[in-house]
Amino acid sequence: MKKLINVPAHYVDESLAGLCAAFPGYASTGATGRVIARKGGAARGKVGVVTGGGFGHLPVFAGYVGQGLLDACAVGDVFAGPPAEVCAEAIRAADGGAGVVCVLGNYGGDRMSFANACDEVQDAGIETRTEIVADDVASAAPAERQKRRGVAGMIFAFKVAGARAAAGGSLDEVAAAAAKAAGRTRSIGVALSPCLIPGAAKPGFTLGEDEIEIGMGIHGEPGLERRALPPADEVTSELVRRLLDDAPADAAAPRRRVAFLVNSLGATPLEELLIVYRKAAELLGAAGVDIARRYVGHYATSMEMAGCSLSLLFLDAELESLLDAPTDCPFWPRAQC
Amino acid sequence: MKKLINVPAHYVDESLAGLCAAFPGYASTGATGRVIARKGGAARGKVGVVTGGGFGHLPVFAGYVGQGLLDACAVGDVFAGPPAEVCAEAIRAADGGAGVVCVLGNYGGDRMSFANACDEVQDAGIETRTEIVADDVASAAPAERQKRRGVAGMIFAFKVAGARAAAGGSLDEVAAAAAKAAGRTRSIGVALSPCLIPGAAKPGFTLGEDEIEIGMGIHGEPGLERRALPPADEVTSELVRRLLDDAPADAAAPRRRVAFLVNSLGATPLEELLIVYRKAAELLGAAGVDIARRYVGHYATSMEMAGCSLSLLFLDAELESLLDAPTDCPFWPRAQC
Repeated sequence: MKKLINVPAHYVDESLAGLCAAFPGYASTGATGRVIARKGGAARGKVGVVTGGGFGHLPVFAGYVGQGLLDACAVGDVFAGPPAEVCAEAIRAADGGAGVVCVLGNYGGDRMSFANACDEVQDAGIETRTEIVADDVASAAPAERQKRRGVAGMIFAFKVAGARAAAGGSLDEVAAAAAKAAGRTRSIGVALSPCLIPGAAKPGFTLGEDEIEIGMGIHGEPGLERRALPPADEVTSELVRRLLDDAPADAAAPRRRVAFLVNSLGATPLEELLIVYRKAAELLGAAGVDIARRYVGHYATSMEMAGCSLSLLFLDAELESLLDAPTDCPFWPRAQC
Repeated sequence: MKKLINVPAHYVDESLAGLCAAFPGYASTGATGRVIARKGGAARGKVGVVTGGGFGHLPVFAGYVGQGLLDACAVGDVFAGPPAEVCAEAIRAADGGAGVVCVLGNYGGDRMSFANACDEVQDAGIETRTEIVADDVASAAPAERQKRRGVAGMIFAFKVAGARAAAGGSLDEVAAAAAKAAGRTRSIGVALSPCLIPGAAKPGFTLGEDEIEIGMGIHGEPGLERRALPPADEVTSELVRRLLDDAPADAAAPRRRVAFLVNSLGATPLEELLIVYRKAAELLGAAGVDIARRYVGHYATSMEMAGCSLSLLFLDAELESLLDAPTDCPFWPRAQC
């Protein structure tokens, strides 16, 4: 796990500098430089949408800043949530006078920092709402859904909230759209190899030479089970089954429509994602699920971790239209029907 | 290097099936199924543009099929060029009655197969031109430029040729545009770790735990030098220097304009590409080079190989406009100025 880096302590800031240099839509703001916002700042009268979290998951989180997507993002250290003052800076950067919706993955540190930040900005007259994405079905049973982690499916809630805000939604309408997307998203991952935090002597976990872990989190949090690496179709079948077993109760029409994300955790190449997609599409079709929108690639990573995750967003007409709404974000693909 | 695959012998065909299932613009055609073409087939009266090559480099080669880009692609086995009959099928799939331009990386097998295929289709009345991309400055000295390999910079020639054809260019005009892009593109890579051909017992090469190789080819062909892993800025400086030392002689205006690609070979994550971009942009600016268009991500890979490559296309007004021309290819980014 060799890295093209300089001093480990500069890893995050140099990456963010590169992001702003390489993609003209991003600007680094705030006293710490750890807020990435849309260049040009918040649109007056529009509800702002922000997120934040640890670094090392690009394009999550900061990459999803863009017109029709997030207005600003608070960036922490590698795998460590941003402090409250950075979250408050992100909220202020996103504020256009109509309030700000915080769409967060379900991590204690991120939630705590944003809760403190929301208190702080309220004193300055900025109204906020917070919606939590807890899409990882492997991280807690359905009865404890609120304990689940947020993983790659977060990007659906970002997009839906951003599009609803761009369309002129009120603070409550944008929050409701984010909540609907979060509530209808299910994800699960499989890890094949670990990643290494810059400067760390060794990875936070290890896997045997032919071992995988079903349901591992994006920071290496324990999953459901370790086993010998099976054929891709077998892994895919298990992941799809676990997602469908957990489908929202109201998604039971004769045929259901979904947006489907096959995401590389880092090192797993597109060739393998496509092998997984092929089998998953076959299984979903057989289960009465129509794939209305598809996303295959690097959407939410853990640096060079090998493995992939699958996410389903169970659509309705509003969600489908918000997914398709235009954005200039370089990490969101062109609409493909 | 664990892989999410099934039987190694099915790796290519299952990936291609996934490509066509996941992205609605692609169709698999030909008796072998090893031609990826635009769904709906060739546009009547338009010059066709094709490429072909070994598999394992997605999005190169097949991913660059799309409106305003390639019409068809001949796909070989992993790291092995396609046979002549598949190349002939690709040319026929791209033929709209106005001739077909073959834009190829400089690999003996690919060139030979396409030469035979061009002979074969000529008998059927399809006129062809062939342009070779030899952009890897590490693979031969300037005096032997024609021996250089084609690497990530090939994508610029694909785009330019595809856009010229979409704009109504004649067979000779499309070939000339491809030749101009190829002649003005320079690339160099650095490998940090190898990749593994599915089914192979071990990688085709190894690198020591802290070792890198400057200039290694995308199939592990020998590069210029092995050395201990230096800081990212030091590697970047060397790569940029080698590219600029080899700049086209006519690109010597007070300030030159380039399209700049920072490409992951596979496992190297976006965070590191951005660290490299940041330093390279600083160096290019200081050298009087303006980055007019930027591309950072997974554009030409070697499965899970770690490392990156840098490519410069020295622009003129025609090339810049052709790069910006619209395309629906899911692997070509939105125009960003």
